Amino acid sequence: MKFYSFWRSLASFRVRIALNIKQIMPDEIVNVDLMKGEQLRDDYKAINPQMLLPALVDGDGPILFQSIAIMEYLDETHPQPRLLPADPRGRARVRALALINAADSHPLMVPRVRNFMEHELKLDETARETWIRHWITEGLAAMEGHLARDNETGTFAHGENVTMADICVAAQVTGAGFFKVNVEPYPTVMRIATSCMALPAFAKAHPLKQPGAPASLSH
Amino acid sequence: MKFYSFWRSLASFRVRIALNIKQIMPDEIVNVDLMKGEQLRDDYKAINPQMLLPALVDGDGPILFQSIAIMEYLDETHPQPRLLPADPRGRARVRALALINAADSHPLMVPRVRNFMEHELKLDETARETWIRHWITEGLAAMEGHLARDNETGTFAHGENVTMADICVAAQVTGAGFFKVNVEPYPTVMRIATSCMALPAFAKAHPLKQPGAPASLSH
Repeated sequence: MKFYSFWRSLASFRVRIALNIKQIMPDEIVNVDLMKGEQLRDDYKAINPQMLLPALVDGDGPILFQSIAIMEYLDETHPQPRLLPADPRGRARVRALALINAADSHPLMVPRVRNFMEHELKLDETARETWIRHWITEGLAAMEGHLARDNETGTFAHGENVTMADICVAAQVTGAGFFKVNVEPYPTVMRIATSCMALPAFAKAHPLKQPGAPASLSH
Repeated sequence: MKFYSFWRSLASFRVRIALNIKQIMPDEIVNVDLMKGEQLRDDYKAINPQMLLPALVDGDGPILFQSIAIMEYLDETHPQPRLLPADPRGRARVRALALINAADSHPLMVPRVRNFMEHELKLDETARETWIRHWITEGLAAMEGHLARDNETGTFAHGENVTMADICVAAQVTGAGFFKVNVEPYPTVMRIATSCMALPAFAKAHPLKQPGAPASLSH
């Protein structure tokens, strides 16, 4: 298994947590430096035509891409421990919670979006950070709304076991930390994220603990 | 089954196609007018705290939200015809193709994003449309890159049967039509979208064929 990732990529972070939970060690980790635009190079485009991270090669099949699709694949091919509950309704809830981060929040602040805002829309750094903080906050608020309301919420986002929803909660909160978003209004989200980050599978996957990462982040 | 949707919402369109494919008729369709901001009202917030469309109530369980999670739920609870292939690698490919639209393209142009750009970032209509067209184009290019390369591509995105990937290809191309994006560079995407829209399940789900829709769209 060959894992294309980058320390700072929150989508890579999500898959790294899933790999750790499943105790899967990729044979090779290929660093694709998003800051240098390496994801746009022809050699990476040949691997993932979408030119985003992460990507995973497992055997000789076509490349796996998109973090949610990769996590579902890992869950189907390495079922223990499960990243999704067994019942369809629970699975739907976990997937929907995960997508708050992976579809409706994180894709609005990835490097390609920030670059387009800076170079094409000529938005200054203040405007770009206002934008990023807004969508991180919207994601946190949506998660809090569901998690604080639903009886299914337990120690983790869905009961007492870690699921794909927790991975995405942790990614959302880590992004909030990068951009110094006020997380006080989201106590349920923060409680769950804290429970997650206390687990080695999450802690050792943290962006700032990866090769090439700085000691701290000043974006 | 109660389906909260809006004619123009492409996420609702995705679920509408899935319901048609599965021949599921919701008992009630509730119109939530995104143009009037009805998704932000307290009564809808009580249903879906994320305040986005679509949402689905099935029996007495918690609300189902997020179009991809709803489609997976429908596929698990109404397995025929399948929206995902049987093999994990094929499922991963279909999910990843779907997420190009549902995570990396469509969420960047929904009403809340356009409203924030207009009212908070003070971007004029030209800048907003440049933005929207750019991310529609990026999604089309990513789909084309994968679909044109992979041996798994057939009449549809993954072989000879309609999958969730086709639903998202159709949504991507429909969005491109709304914003008059040049689709000429994406022949594989367009071939597949044309095959899809020839099917009644897709055709009758089209945004402009829903109650409340105008005869044509001038955004």
